[in-house]
Amino acid sequence: MLDKLVNRPWKVLESKNILKIGPWLSVRGEHVQMPNGRVIDSWFTLEFPNWVSVIAETTDGRLVMIDQYRHGIGQTRYEIVAGVIDEGETPLHAAQRELLEETGFGGGEWSEFMVLSPNTSNHNNLSYTFLAKGVTLIQPQHQEATEDIHVHVADKEDVRELVMQGGVLQALHAAPLLKYFLMEAPSDSPCRGEAKG
Amino acid sequence: MLDKLVNRPWKVLESKNILKIGPWLSVRGEHVQMPNGRVIDSWFTLEFPNWVSVIAETTDGRLVMIDQYRHGIGQTRYEIVAGVIDEGETPLHAAQRELLEETGFGGGEWSEFMVLSPNTSNHNNLSYTFLAKGVTLIQPQHQEATEDIHVHVADKEDVRELVMQGGVLQALHAAPLLKYFLMEAPSDSPCRGEAKG
Repeated sequence: MLDKLVNRPWKVLESKNILKIGPWLSVRGEHVQMPNGRVIDSWFTLEFPNWVSVIAETTDGRLVMIDQYRHGIGQTRYEIVAGVIDEGETPLHAAQRELLEETGFGGGEWSEFMVLSPNTSNHNNLSYTFLAKGVTLIQPQHQEATEDIHVHVADKEDVRELVMQGGVLQALHAAPLLKYFLMEAPSDSPCRGEAKG
Repeated sequence: MLDKLVNRPWKVLESKNILKIGPWLSVRGEHVQMPNGRVIDSWFTLEFPNWVSVIAETTDGRLVMIDQYRHGIGQTRYEIVAGVIDEGETPLHAAQRELLEETGFGGGEWSEFMVLSPNTSNHNNLSYTFLAKGVTLIQPQHQEATEDIHVHVADKEDVRELVMQGGVLQALHAAPLLKYFLMEAPSDSPCRGEAKG
């Protein structure tokens, strides 16, 4: 087993907000000191609310995927449902709300599946992925004016192939999907198990 | 198989740099139009150089992991080796340079393993992960003054357990490690295969 790590935090000598544009972008600039005494004049951290995403399995064992255009990379790509946690909202509620709004799917059994950082170095927020088992289409998709989301209810094998071939570019979505498929994969061969017994 | 997606790009009506702090932070603000005609007044994109990371397997089949303090989340965490591609550098060269600098390991056979986006929505860059097989310790670690990196040469099973239990928080590192372990997992049981044959 790998050792539990001892934290080696930097000391913040000075901190100020250097850019804030509505709810979209907030940048903190800091003057920090490392444990060895060395001072870093400027460290920039992007401040965001926490995010959520959902791996949603339908009652017939397929996965609810979406596609949308993403301007950062200038491409339309497959994704899982994701969004921002509103103020006062729990991660679970945000994930259920986003799935319902973006796809119309809901219900089922929900559990927290994975916690990730978009970038441990310069993002202060986390992304919570939920696994929803047994969802069904319960209402029409309800998109915001600036959303253009297409829904794909896809066979697991097709999603696995998509992810393995690089079709899900967004790291925050690729990681939970890969964990999901790894949990489904046999960890050892049953016949080798039998041979041992 | 999932359909190949048709791109639905936004049209950029106006674009300007709204923040640039040395090589660390560059923010582009744009006025864009969706294919349906709707205009989005402000879209912000973070501009970064491309990044690299490395899954490095030693000649005895262990994995070269590191830990370092990450100020975004305020925690010291396990990671794989990663860094920024310097101007004029190929992704492969950057990955080999980073592995050597951060750990002293080098050599072996290298192949491109995965391409990810830190955030398709608001980052313009990509992260290239390489798989290096058969690396060996060839020189002392050579850290930059602001780096405080500890090296761990760990058994694969321990790294797999670490990732599955959420010990690698950085999405850009968790995803390639999970893909690596999924590729190592048997995709079907050999004995079921024999029963079919």
